[in-house]
Amino acid sequence: MNDAQAPIVPAVEVLAFDIFGTVVDWHGSIVRELGRRYPQVDGDAFALAWRAGYKPAMVRVMSGELGWTLIDDLHRMILDAILPQFGLERLGEEERRELNRVWHRLDPWPDAVAGLQRLKRKYLLCTLSNGNLGLLTRMAKRAGLPWDCVLSAEVFRAYKPDPATYLGVARVFDVPPDRVMLVAAHHDDLAAARACGLRTAYVVRPLEFGPAHPKDVAPQAGNDLHSRDLLHLADLLDC
Amino acid sequence: MNDAQAPIVPAVEVLAFDIFGTVVDWHGSIVRELGRRYPQVDGDAFALAWRAGYKPAMVRVMSGELGWTLIDDLHRMILDAILPQFGLERLGEEERRELNRVWHRLDPWPDAVAGLQRLKRKYLLCTLSNGNLGLLTRMAKRAGLPWDCVLSAEVFRAYKPDPATYLGVARVFDVPPDRVMLVAAHHDDLAAARACGLRTAYVVRPLEFGPAHPKDVAPQAGNDLHSRDLLHLADLLDC
Repeated sequence: MNDAQAPIVPAVEVLAFDIFGTVVDWHGSIVRELGRRYPQVDGDAFALAWRAGYKPAMVRVMSGELGWTLIDDLHRMILDAILPQFGLERLGEEERRELNRVWHRLDPWPDAVAGLQRLKRKYLLCTLSNGNLGLLTRMAKRAGLPWDCVLSAEVFRAYKPDPATYLGVARVFDVPPDRVMLVAAHHDDLAAARACGLRTAYVVRPLEFGPAHPKDVAPQAGNDLHSRDLLHLADLLDC
Repeated sequence: MNDAQAPIVPAVEVLAFDIFGTVVDWHGSIVRELGRRYPQVDGDAFALAWRAGYKPAMVRVMSGELGWTLIDDLHRMILDAILPQFGLERLGEEERRELNRVWHRLDPWPDAVAGLQRLKRKYLLCTLSNGNLGLLTRMAKRAGLPWDCVLSAEVFRAYKPDPATYLGVARVFDVPPDRVMLVAAHHDDLAAARACGLRTAYVVRPLEFGPAHPKDVAPQAGNDLHSRDLLHLADLLDC
């Protein structure tokens, strides 16, 4: 299939994917895990509280208040902080460690694996996530996400939206920034990539925050592509 | 299939692979590329001369004489230096650049893809090569090498045999060093990994330097496994 949007992006060689929310359903996965382990807890509120601590934690790292810290460790700090709010302060070290690894076991959105397989025929596919390499690798192995290369903030020692991350992808693959397209469900991530000269594709994920909290997925000016999911993105890119 | 060597390594989770010579046939690939492009040149001597510059170039980086330099750039420096010896000093920028990318197009040994596919069912597979990420990723995509994660000296800003590389794999995957096994066709690489607490598997590649220069592939004490190729390694590891 083809589409009117496709001719805009003839020279792209590398597709770099945001992961949390774009490729995998963090909210639904955490709700399901909580439901299995601690059915008395409000999984929706728990998932939202855990995720809400994420950006502030990264800001503390990038401001220098915290030294360089992997997302696995930031997730654990946030987890320890929120457990009492949900009556789970009694959890021991092993249970906390195991629960924290839910981020390694997030389920892909239903279109993700098939969409990536199609896109992989034509493009070099990498992750560009603030998640650490171990997290992203274990997630991909479990879910069958067919990355050509796992790239992470960990490689660049900087968290998105730091330009070092977007430009780092272009540098790793020795291509000009406009041969890299960031694929993400977040307009702020895409805007930061665009400011570095990357191409951008928005992916609509209205239920990223769960069915009780639909998010605005209206197109924004400036993105090269606006896709309903990764299968639609494959259509738009003629894969 | 099983084998007497297997019970030694029950706890390994990650197999980290040396690449040049272990997984891909750099000598044969360069000889074939030279034969197609410049049939008047002695491809065997050319491949050996190019590769001979590799370790000295990395030593210059690790000693601080050169700043951090990717293998793509080291390969290019060595190429520029040897071209006159082979009557190729007339090559222009574009031809040099294209020839230098032969390292992205190295062919795997015949057992490599099938062996890795078997090993991948049971282990997390990563590269641990001095090759840069772009090189390793493009090589894997072309050859069908099914890595779970591409790791490189580039991630650790240190070249093997620096301990930061071997220990870096364990750190990335958050496991003790003895849960990582380095797979390599070079005893010096394996010895350095072993000194860091990693498990080690030797792979016999008698023709790494071409059929005119068979290398000694006798077992050495200290390696956990000694394999004929990656299919045999899969046998030994019960994959």
